[in-house]
Amino acid sequence: MPPRPPAELGAPVSEIETPALVIDLDLFERNLATMADAVGGSGVRLRPHAKAHKCPDIALRQMASGAIGVCCQKVSEAEVFVAAGIPDVLLTNEVADPRKLRRLADLSRTARIGLCVDGPAHVARLAQARAGHEGRLDILIEIDVGQGRCGMPVGPQLVDLARAIDAVPGLSFAGLQAYQGKAQHLRAPQDRRTAIGHAVERARIAKSMLEGTGIACPIVTGAGTGTFALEMTSGIYTELQPGSYALMDADYARNAFDGPVFAHALTLHATVISTAVPGQAVLDVGYKGAAVDSGLPVPVSPATEVLGMSDEHTVLRQPERAPLAVGDRVILLPGHVDPTVNLHDWFVGVRDGRVETLWPITARGAGL
Amino acid sequence: MPPRPPAELGAPVSEIETPALVIDLDLFERNLATMADAVGGSGVRLRPHAKAHKCPDIALRQMASGAIGVCCQKVSEAEVFVAAGIPDVLLTNEVADPRKLRRLADLSRTARIGLCVDGPAHVARLAQARAGHEGRLDILIEIDVGQGRCGMPVGPQLVDLARAIDAVPGLSFAGLQAYQGKAQHLRAPQDRRTAIGHAVERARIAKSMLEGTGIACPIVTGAGTGTFALEMTSGIYTELQPGSYALMDADYARNAFDGPVFAHALTLHATVISTAVPGQAVLDVGYKGAAVDSGLPVPVSPATEVLGMSDEHTVLRQPERAPLAVGDRVILLPGHVDPTVNLHDWFVGVRDGRVETLWPITARGAGL
Repeated sequence: MPPRPPAELGAPVSEIETPALVIDLDLFERNLATMADAVGGSGVRLRPHAKAHKCPDIALRQMASGAIGVCCQKVSEAEVFVAAGIPDVLLTNEVADPRKLRRLADLSRTARIGLCVDGPAHVARLAQARAGHEGRLDILIEIDVGQGRCGMPVGPQLVDLARAIDAVPGLSFAGLQAYQGKAQHLRAPQDRRTAIGHAVERARIAKSMLEGTGIACPIVTGAGTGTFALEMTSGIYTELQPGSYALMDADYARNAFDGPVFAHALTLHATVISTAVPGQAVLDVGYKGAAVDSGLPVPVSPATEVLGMSDEHTVLRQPERAPLAVGDRVILLPGHVDPTVNLHDWFVGVRDGRVETLWPITARGAGL
Repeated sequence: MPPRPPAELGAPVSEIETPALVIDLDLFERNLATMADAVGGSGVRLRPHAKAHKCPDIALRQMASGAIGVCCQKVSEAEVFVAAGIPDVLLTNEVADPRKLRRLADLSRTARIGLCVDGPAHVARLAQARAGHEGRLDILIEIDVGQGRCGMPVGPQLVDLARAIDAVPGLSFAGLQAYQGKAQHLRAPQDRRTAIGHAVERARIAKSMLEGTGIACPIVTGAGTGTFALEMTSGIYTELQPGSYALMDADYARNAFDGPVFAHALTLHATVISTAVPGQAVLDVGYKGAAVDSGLPVPVSPATEVLGMSDEHTVLRQPERAPLAVGDRVILLPGHVDPTVNLHDWFVGVRDGRVETLWPITARGAGL
């Protein structure tokens, strides 16, 4: 039973069933244009991260707006985007399961596929898994540039690993993944500059180390919405991976930005289902429709405060003027775009007060 | 593209692709038997909450183990369970949207359907929405028994509302929803007894108030896994709504129990994808596969500690003995069963080390 979309094409916004993720198409298109303007002419390639939206319709619009391909985090995500016609996918993550590695190799027959590794174990598994297959994978070595999660330390073992990659038939060492995720949500621009300055320095040393031994390092990739302008002008990064910029969220709203500013194109529409407890209005969405890992959703219309959340409910403080009634609409900014999108099956695209598009979130739940 | 299951029937547990939600079928069946034993002979009916598992295969087994039907939270959930053959569904929530109310009325042609209201606005909307439809709905008034979320205060307006319900063709006042959700995770049995003592008292007063004016109140429903034995022996509650008992989670593991104890039948299987940063092992699951609203998942095999989580990763402290390697399996207890289940499309049921069943989580994402 495929989930029903929460709206009909052409319907007024007020008739969208809730909870629903709604995209303001004007703002969304402006965000894509803002990013294209920011990156255009820099000589650096834009490869937006599809983990943020999981939606082929958005990825195809990003391609039309200058992207060279997309990033994914999961093999099953990559399968969705290749099936939708994206010709170039980088998996910005490590993969251990030989069956998943074989599926990636299969995908590489119809699209250019890149994958990250951060140690010899991955290369051994790739060598084993690809036996008998004909695919070809670009392999990037992930280096730890301050994130402290995945990624090798920068040192001479990079050279050994790059050589080991090139020694496996069908694998090509293609460069470095140098993503500093922790820097994205540092609130002050100066703190982000310091963090990315360190990342750039690590990437520069790693690249020099490889090139010094005659190993070409054509790709250095990283960056997110919070810092992409810094990596872009570093002289080292060749690709950028921002994801959130297309839709945005309340967590990014807490960043101070001194570069391009993106609009909040994504909102979560909800309906008041109870006002029985004085001073409160209760919405028809909770943890199952709004991720709270990076903070609560923020009510923007009406502007009020979230008093509490549970699996199925969000409790708002009743606005003093114009209190909410059962059936009223409330519009929230999602706390964190990526895991919130992963809870929904549809984006409802609106313009001029009407539903213009219904985009399936095809890679929703693609976790394998 | 319907999501692929993470395992094949008959495969050894070690070959389940990850991340995957795995049910130990022996423990699951023991939990159902423990609940049936606890409730059997009490004269109180068991109506497990399907929001916890969203899985018709589990609901049908609960029915076979003595349940009279299930509870749901959403109309689209109820549609899934009625389509699967559940003959009696109570929606333990308020619904504002007239289209959803019409869909519920439609469902009532093939199953017995109950719904909660907590004020006159809901009854007016029901009256309006059901025009021209032939369904019949049992209506329960939700009273606030200490949860402070939805629910009317206990007072004479209950009588007016019950009369207003019965005045609408096709609606029957059927009783009270008196759920104290906050009590479920009070850690000490004495604190839960105090909270439920208060809830029982509120429900008793409300029922007396109604019956004193000649209005029958055949159903009083509430309770969860943390407190059901208290409501069961209250002499007031006639139905129980526990959901988590079938699978359990790390949040319930922090409760001290002095009644029936349920086993942790549900685990989240994950795979180590990186050990490049010293002292850490990084798993292939993050916020998109494990809800963190009620605390982090807990690694049980090997027993170690979660150092951090992000959208796609969980970082573990490396066990000092037998450090984890890339490709190793790690088994975690989900932090909170309901929203974690809602992130997955399949339960993998295992017994004697092999995959015995693959149960689709059909109502996953059913939020409308």
